[in-house]
Amino acid sequence: MPKSVENAAAGDVSPFRSPEQRVAERAAKREAVLRAAVRTFNARGFQAASLDDVAARLKISKPTIYHYLGNKEQVLLECVTRGLEILRGAATKAQSGQGSGLERLTRFLTAYAEAIMDDFGRCVIRTADEALSPEGGARFRALKSEIDAAMRALIEQGVADGSIGPVDVKMAAFTLAGALNWPARWHDSGGPMPPEAIAKAMVDVLVRGLAPRP
Amino acid sequence: MPKSVENAAAGDVSPFRSPEQRVAERAAKREAVLRAAVRTFNARGFQAASLDDVAARLKISKPTIYHYLGNKEQVLLECVTRGLEILRGAATKAQSGQGSGLERLTRFLTAYAEAIMDDFGRCVIRTADEALSPEGGARFRALKSEIDAAMRALIEQGVADGSIGPVDVKMAAFTLAGALNWPARWHDSGGPMPPEAIAKAMVDVLVRGLAPRP
Repeated sequence: MPKSVENAAAGDVSPFRSPEQRVAERAAKREAVLRAAVRTFNARGFQAASLDDVAARLKISKPTIYHYLGNKEQVLLECVTRGLEILRGAATKAQSGQGSGLERLTRFLTAYAEAIMDDFGRCVIRTADEALSPEGGARFRALKSEIDAAMRALIEQGVADGSIGPVDVKMAAFTLAGALNWPARWHDSGGPMPPEAIAKAMVDVLVRGLAPRP
Repeated sequence: MPKSVENAAAGDVSPFRSPEQRVAERAAKREAVLRAAVRTFNARGFQAASLDDVAARLKISKPTIYHYLGNKEQVLLECVTRGLEILRGAATKAQSGQGSGLERLTRFLTAYAEAIMDDFGRCVIRTADEALSPEGGARFRALKSEIDAAMRALIEQGVADGSIGPVDVKMAAFTLAGALNWPARWHDSGGPMPPEAIAKAMVDVLVRGLAPRP
């Protein structure tokens, strides 16, 4: 190819998008729809929220939502799956990290708390199993069980290496998860304390306990 | 009065109830309606539950429920008020009890956890402010704030007398309440572990913390 033709092609601004651009744009649109949906569900509750609200937020039509994500239950399932994948990712990262069992659990709990204060994690906690179809509910419960199992495994590793005191592992997992799930009900993202600081303060209470340490 | 007349009166079984019996019976009926209502709300969710379900449980008519407790929102408000009064009673008892701040807080937390696994406490946690009218919601929030204030006061007393380590009091109260509120979502009253044992195990994790103690 002569140099001049190559330069001309590189300099041209084409009104046609490349296949890569189209893929990226589609992914960005799907992401925007998902984010608008999760915020709508969190703000109004799944039962009360409608896909019309989601469409209005983005100034798009409801069929556009169907196109990207499906019907209302499919959209919710996508939101909670995303939230649970964030939690699972945090567990995997903590599992493969350095340090004692307690240090790895602490990192997981901190990431867990931060995720719960963010849109998708909050949606996981606010969604009742009954909001989903039997199949969707079963998948939701299975994913939640995975997170619970990962938390228990980290606690067990800490007990085994002596970095965590003797404890009823199942009850400890429920206690930790309960404490860190609760901000999904009260945390205000416009509040004065950033989520990272809240996460740190809560995890500190759970790691140290109430009784004073020497 | 001659002895014979006194004996005859004492031995008669009257088909008419005394004023005291009527008062007691009315209270027992009101209590039965309230208990049936709270169980229905907990099982089906407030939105989905109807007073017809409550009436069916007791084989009574819906107007009988209105007579004893009022409309559906009034019944719910009565249920959550009862639950919050149980929590407030536990706080008052702990406040006036013996021992260090941590010992009194521990007793409050244990009673709190047990109440949350019982019908009325569970209803407090499962009820969203939005389920109530603006006035009802305001009263509900005010009562919840009282419980939060009582918990913070007990934590502060423990920090002051040295029985609780240095801690962000507000965050500690949120962490403790969150952990102990969570069983309202998962506890199964037919499960193998009695509520008292669950409460003890959870509070033990919160008091001791995860890090081992010498």
